Amino acid sequence: MLPKSLVDLIEYFKKFPGIGEKTAERLAFSVLNFDIEEVTEFSKALCNAKSNIKPCSVCGTLTESDICFICRDDSRDSDSILVVENSKDVFLFERIGNYNGYYHVLGGLISPLDEIGPDDLSINLLLERVRNNNIKEVVLAIKTGIEADTTALYIKKLLEKDGIIVTRIANGIPIGADMEYIDVLTLETALNNRKEVF
Amino acid sequence: MLPKSLVDLIEYFKKFPGIGEKTAERLAFSVLNFDIEEVTEFSKALCNAKSNIKPCSVCGTLTESDICFICRDDSRDSDSILVVENSKDVFLFERIGNYNGYYHVLGGLISPLDEIGPDDLSINLLLERVRNNNIKEVVLAIKTGIEADTTALYIKKLLEKDGIIVTRIANGIPIGADMEYIDVLTLETALNNRKEVF
Repeated sequence: MLPKSLVDLIEYFKKFPGIGEKTAERLAFSVLNFDIEEVTEFSKALCNAKSNIKPCSVCGTLTESDICFICRDDSRDSDSILVVENSKDVFLFERIGNYNGYYHVLGGLISPLDEIGPDDLSINLLLERVRNNNIKEVVLAIKTGIEADTTALYIKKLLEKDGIIVTRIANGIPIGADMEYIDVLTLETALNNRKEVF
Repeated sequence: MLPKSLVDLIEYFKKFPGIGEKTAERLAFSVLNFDIEEVTEFSKALCNAKSNIKPCSVCGTLTESDICFICRDDSRDSDSILVVENSKDVFLFERIGNYNGYYHVLGGLISPLDEIGPDDLSINLLLERVRNNNIKEVVLAIKTGIEADTTALYIKKLLEKDGIIVTRIANGIPIGADMEYIDVLTLETALNNRKEVF
């Protein structure tokens, strides 16, 4: 019979994605090994993050200001917008460092089954941005799957009339991955998307 | 460039054992998906757990009262004390449910390399308890290894003069484990500890 406040804590840790009973327990127990100061600071950090961070009013990237540091950066390539599903993805691409355009966070994918339509996503805002800033290329950096493909097609249909190039990041074999562990669909895609060797 | 308060939060998650950069990020991001109420409650739960829970003054098990629910339970078998390294282990054995004696948390193992001597552990307290309550058997439920063996031997030497039986939980092949995955040392121990089939 664990102490009540420990049981409570475990329950909260279990709310996190990918955290099961055992891990939640391990985390809760380790809280007891921290100094009281550390725990207080941690709990403050939680509330701060939750209350300070909101989506950028332009692109939807997480930010503490009204407009994120990317949208505020005029030195960026104003011709292209890279569209991602979640704002977390923005930081992944920023880490690569070789993309210098702007971003747009959809906030999800079109999924009739989950009753998520185009209006539930920031697609209209994307169209506005594209038209008002005469963007030339919209790069779709969304995962594969029916929802993603539907969303990609939907966005393409809307933008092609305006003569905007809509591209999608390549599917294929991950660099360094072992052939034998790649699923058939990926292999097939990789084969179809083959490129001439230079 | 992640928002400052998110970076801070990630740093705190990284303090947890077994939580690396990627997991810390995943956890920090998911905090943003919780309601502000949930986050507040979670941060309270953290502080509550840290401030309410302390070791039982008798056996060292984590408790919110001065003396834990096990030590307060007179219906238990007063002949034996099960000795564990950490108070977390107490709850593991309580879950099995078939041990009905009392517990004692050592708070570690004798380890000259880490400069942990007998006096850094609650061994003297154990001796006191054993003598004052005329305990008949002390069960050592500690993991294997040099430190554990040293600790076991040390405790045995102290108690055998008083004619107290000091036992140690069995080593062997985990139930249901695949033979081929068992290390040689475990196999050897299992062979040496073989029991007649009834």
